[in-house]
Amino acid sequence: MNFSSKLIEEAVSAFASLPGIGKKTALRLTLHLVSQDVEYSREFAQALTQMREKIRHCIDCHNISDAEHCAICANPGRDKGLVCVVEGIRDVMAIEETGQFRGLYHVLGGIISPIEGIGPEQLNIDSLIQRVEKGTIKELILAISPTIEGETTMYYLTRKMADHDIRVSTIARGVSFGGDLEYADELTLGRSIQARIPYRVASDPDARS
Amino acid sequence: MNFSSKLIEEAVSAFASLPGIGKKTALRLTLHLVSQDVEYSREFAQALTQMREKIRHCIDCHNISDAEHCAICANPGRDKGLVCVVEGIRDVMAIEETGQFRGLYHVLGGIISPIEGIGPEQLNIDSLIQRVEKGTIKELILAISPTIEGETTMYYLTRKMADHDIRVSTIARGVSFGGDLEYADELTLGRSIQARIPYRVASDPDARS
Repeated sequence: MNFSSKLIEEAVSAFASLPGIGKKTALRLTLHLVSQDVEYSREFAQALTQMREKIRHCIDCHNISDAEHCAICANPGRDKGLVCVVEGIRDVMAIEETGQFRGLYHVLGGIISPIEGIGPEQLNIDSLIQRVEKGTIKELILAISPTIEGETTMYYLTRKMADHDIRVSTIARGVSFGGDLEYADELTLGRSIQARIPYRVASDPDARS
Repeated sequence: MNFSSKLIEEAVSAFASLPGIGKKTALRLTLHLVSQDVEYSREFAQALTQMREKIRHCIDCHNISDAEHCAICANPGRDKGLVCVVEGIRDVMAIEETGQFRGLYHVLGGIISPIEGIGPEQLNIDSLIQRVEKGTIKELILAISPTIEGETTMYYLTRKMADHDIRVSTIARGVSFGGDLEYADELTLGRSIQARIPYRVASDPDARS
């Protein structure tokens, strides 16, 4: 594209270096900055640099954090006996969004992938074992994608936990609530039949116990 | 969304304040910055603030510019007798992309719109008249959208130019090259029949003169 301005060209390149932002969108965003006060661009830039310079990773669970411990680990109301093991930060956010989980997390920072050269030593697995060895954790919930790499990671973790007196579970997978059977993929539908559970009437108070 | 980090929240808000960027995309972009070096975020932020602080508008044509005169006005190879009048900066870029125009531009900075309270005095019309009064401009090409506001603007400009010895033209509109007639909108197709031109064989050298 012909920008007739070096400054615009550099700003467009900066935006276009972000994932999923093409040249046209980058130009639109750049011209938006031009149409606003100088102060707007300064504040925008500052929010990003401040965040990047000050952001840390929680020393316990490796979640992103503003302080040494993240807000979840620092919360005294959370169940310290229950730890949900996830691949990344976004998984933490997705589970937090549900409001259904009151335990802590452990962010692996990826999954074991020999093809990409990621072994257990590149992931936050040692620190997970150290947390388990402290003895407060009663159960690990593995919330990891059921891909080949994910299954490998879960198998590795389960073997590592075999020596410890700890329950290891994985999240339930199946046809989603409101999902039509005819549109469910075969693997999910097949597994959901194999992993069937006893039917409970939702309104039956006994069934809830 | 629950970010468990004030810094992340602020960076996400900053990205989400841009047009067309939603919360989910903003989070994706923020986490991309986190995954890169601190230096990347600094350079990204600097490209934007530098651009915004230093960018100017050409004192002749009001196009965005790094200097007093934009690269187009400063180019001695451009035809100073031909000026294309456009609404905005993006129109300049679109026309420059074609490589078909060797004249100069005049950016109005909008069009006359009584509903939005934009009158001729809010647009760069006075400076256009001053440019015309200098006498070097032979023809104005109005490349303005044929909406009600656009037509009003073109009518206003044409009347203002009536006292000057200058040709005023508008760009050709019609069914696009390669466009199927059945998919063309009625207005465009109807006007393209009214504004029909004599057929010329493209390979006929006489027809090109």
